[in-house]
Amino acid sequence: MADIPLPPGFTVQKLAEVQRAFESALGADQVFFTPLDRASYNDKFWVDPVGHNPSGAIAPESVEQVQAAIKIANQYKIPLWPISRGKNLGYGGSAPVLSGTVVMDLSRMKKIEFDPETGTAVVEPGVSFYDLYDYLKANNLPYWISTPGNSWGSVMGNALDRGVGYTPYGEHTKRINGLEVVLPTGELVRTGMGAFTGAPTWQAYPFGFGPGWDQMFVQSNFGVVTKMGMWLMPEPESLMGMDVEFDRPEDLKAMIDTIGPLRREGVLQQSPSIGNWLRAAAVLTTRDEWTDKPGALGEDVIDAIRKRFNIGWWGVSLRLYGRESVNKASYRILEDAMKSINPMLIKPTSWVRGEPIEHTGWTGTPITFPMQNVNWYGGRGGHVGFSPILKQDGDAALAQFKRTYARYQEWGMDYQGSFAFGERHLTNVNAMIFNHDDPEMMAKVDPFFRQLVADAKEHGYGEYRTHLDYMDLVAATYDFNNHALWRLNQTVKDALDPNGILAPGKSGIWPSGMGPRTDA
Amino acid sequence: MADIPLPPGFTVQKLAEVQRAFESALGADQVFFTPLDRASYNDKFWVDPVGHNPSGAIAPESVEQVQAAIKIANQYKIPLWPISRGKNLGYGGSAPVLSGTVVMDLSRMKKIEFDPETGTAVVEPGVSFYDLYDYLKANNLPYWISTPGNSWGSVMGNALDRGVGYTPYGEHTKRINGLEVVLPTGELVRTGMGAFTGAPTWQAYPFGFGPGWDQMFVQSNFGVVTKMGMWLMPEPESLMGMDVEFDRPEDLKAMIDTIGPLRREGVLQQSPSIGNWLRAAAVLTTRDEWTDKPGALGEDVIDAIRKRFNIGWWGVSLRLYGRESVNKASYRILEDAMKSINPMLIKPTSWVRGEPIEHTGWTGTPITFPMQNVNWYGGRGGHVGFSPILKQDGDAALAQFKRTYARYQEWGMDYQGSFAFGERHLTNVNAMIFNHDDPEMMAKVDPFFRQLVADAKEHGYGEYRTHLDYMDLVAATYDFNNHALWRLNQTVKDALDPNGILAPGKSGIWPSGMGPRTDA
Repeated sequence: MADIPLPPGFTVQKLAEVQRAFESALGADQVFFTPLDRASYNDKFWVDPVGHNPSGAIAPESVEQVQAAIKIANQYKIPLWPISRGKNLGYGGSAPVLSGTVVMDLSRMKKIEFDPETGTAVVEPGVSFYDLYDYLKANNLPYWISTPGNSWGSVMGNALDRGVGYTPYGEHTKRINGLEVVLPTGELVRTGMGAFTGAPTWQAYPFGFGPGWDQMFVQSNFGVVTKMGMWLMPEPESLMGMDVEFDRPEDLKAMIDTIGPLRREGVLQQSPSIGNWLRAAAVLTTRDEWTDKPGALGEDVIDAIRKRFNIGWWGVSLRLYGRESVNKASYRILEDAMKSINPMLIKPTSWVRGEPIEHTGWTGTPITFPMQNVNWYGGRGGHVGFSPILKQDGDAALAQFKRTYARYQEWGMDYQGSFAFGERHLTNVNAMIFNHDDPEMMAKVDPFFRQLVADAKEHGYGEYRTHLDYMDLVAATYDFNNHALWRLNQTVKDALDPNGILAPGKSGIWPSGMGPRTDA
Repeated sequence: MADIPLPPGFTVQKLAEVQRAFESALGADQVFFTPLDRASYNDKFWVDPVGHNPSGAIAPESVEQVQAAIKIANQYKIPLWPISRGKNLGYGGSAPVLSGTVVMDLSRMKKIEFDPETGTAVVEPGVSFYDLYDYLKANNLPYWISTPGNSWGSVMGNALDRGVGYTPYGEHTKRINGLEVVLPTGELVRTGMGAFTGAPTWQAYPFGFGPGWDQMFVQSNFGVVTKMGMWLMPEPESLMGMDVEFDRPEDLKAMIDTIGPLRREGVLQQSPSIGNWLRAAAVLTTRDEWTDKPGALGEDVIDAIRKRFNIGWWGVSLRLYGRESVNKASYRILEDAMKSINPMLIKPTSWVRGEPIEHTGWTGTPITFPMQNVNWYGGRGGHVGFSPILKQDGDAALAQFKRTYARYQEWGMDYQGSFAFGERHLTNVNAMIFNHDDPEMMAKVDPFFRQLVADAKEHGYGEYRTHLDYMDLVAATYDFNNHALWRLNQTVKDALDPNGILAPGKSGIWPSGMGPRTDA
């Protein structure tokens, strides 16, 4: 019993009392406090194995049950960590920042509402990308979803953590339109037009009247989101595009300086991602098929990988969605632009409504296949991502790549990097794949990650999202005026959550008296 | 002296003390407390002539001066009403909700920064649409701005009140990217990547790390925005489109059900606005040229107006921006769609880079010409707008139109209505033009407005923006869970502005102990 992780100020006895209160409010089959339960809510892709251990979990099935659980949490001052489906892998999965926190697992809340006329949906936290896809297919609805690489996760959870996909609706957080939220006091609010009782426009207009709240519940611990309005993309008549490969690391500059303007002027409505040679190999093979040498992969192995998959040092997929006649005109513009910067290979792709369709992220089909990459090193795999935001500037991006690549070689890690376009920014995702059964490797991950944060800090590049282990570290890099925005968040946190019960430490925001002082 | 409007709890002596404190901090030439000063900051388009009288005004010229003024306001507990350029006509102009409030006029803060590579700008509150346009021309920058009908106003002020324009960047609030804000305590924060000291991505990525704050300072009194990051549209190679006229009131349904899907699927990137026959006549003529009969205009006059301007009952302008080859393909789709619903007239328009350009809202040229419509009735004119949000649904919009049109006739007012598309919603702007020198007419405006609010409330339609007179009324219509979102706003207001000094009553949000209890 001594191994039960307890929140600050708790005893095993008090925790047992809380458990009984949850059981009495929700029913015993929705309350999980055995050692196996605790283990199952841990972070599968942990970096620090003793970091973030829940004391138990509860699974409310309705808004009323969420409110009942929050009432109990306030009564006992026990912290809750809401998860949608807990698949936030690489960023902490289903685990809380603060050990002893009770996970509030919302995966049983799975309702979907859909307005077929305007293509807006309302989803609950438990709705996965598979669920939403199946719903559209079952009801023969002419809309596409936008999926992340690993689609078993929650549509809502992904958007609330600023996850991305591949279609023109791939900046998921930007397609949020109106939320229902249980505040830390238990009060139920609806944002935007949802604040107007019975408004048929709740999912149509995001702002309502007065301050706009939706983004305040994103990457935040200000409330438990129980319903999310969102926009879906009308099924296009045509999908055209090309996969383009480039031979040299230095080609990154021209790629960014050529694709960026096309994205900004709107010829490209979708946000492409430039990835390196490891992306196919890491999913389709394991490292031992290529080499048994430790350290970062050598040029010979990189060449062998590129040869086998016939890919460049970098590759990028550009896609056009919409009417066929418009796509054809846009395609010629893309083709001219790509040809002008000496690609190694251009592989065109084209689909028209009615034809059989490829099951990929570009067609909004849910897949989990990319997750295979955690098998790269063998053993019990995992990954963590370092993801700073850059400008759409080829020189700056190339310099950032060179710095980071040198660090990967210095630390002896295999480089899997990408430069994903937003409308005006780049997200530079640097995956660190690791093997939990290799203690030497695991000892490197944390200092290596901190090295990358420090390198990026020097150049003004902050992360958009990070693992539980690094939330305080990353929050601390947002330091304008001695962390004024962090203090603003802390002030609002204290006003909305006086007992400090909701997700302490999420995004570096802590209730009063808990956690580190980022500005100290 | 008895006529000086005082905030609650103030005497003329205490106000004079405040004035001296402002003079000492800012200099006498930035402090305005004469009767003429007060009059000049009143609402020129008042509905209730005794509603919203400032006690004076101050004009800080820097962030430091804004902070100094806020320090004084906290010391004396005198409320401040920040305005950018004060041209929010129809919604209160430069006047505060609460009489006795001191206007903080930020129109002297006029700095512009521009990143020519990525097309992002930073503007201060005093930058007008003319200023920004002139800046782009003077520096030969290939970007277009999006202007509202009356462009003397502030680029920032417009976006912070959710004003709209005509180009694909016309939903101005959606192109905000990162703010600098002085909080009611005087603390300076920067949002998004601005919170990361020296980040080159402040204007490139809107969200930063953790909760997204930008929209919390929109239509809000949580802070004084001193810098706004924004995105500009790259100058298109081509602009094509058509002005389309329709003969019958009932055509509104088919127009919405045909244009809506084109907007949602993205063939149209810009948000068209459907307007009735009065829009040209009200700007180009005055009412006495058409009739001397009181009451709403009769069918005979409507016919005469339509004949003279060769326009339909409704008209709409559709515009395509981008590459010429793409626009040509899209144009054919628009043309087919419009022809399928029996237009009275299709007038094509086309421009290619290098040709002389029409100076209109569609080319992002600043104009103030539409403001002429306040001369319609003669006398000292004005207008107020009732602007509920609807779904993009032809039947619902037609029903809303019929209800509203009947009310205009019942109240004897000339109908100027529009249905402006957003990406998934319609904003139904109903302008009430009036003549301050006609007491009989002025007596009608307020009860007529309240009638429209009540009618819309029955159907779930809430306003997106409203005049000072109606902020509490409209806030009260957002009543889900007994005004839970309003209480949330009040809680945050009290946490951020303990002395209640910033814009009391803005959007129905009041500091503790002041103003009506919307949820009472």
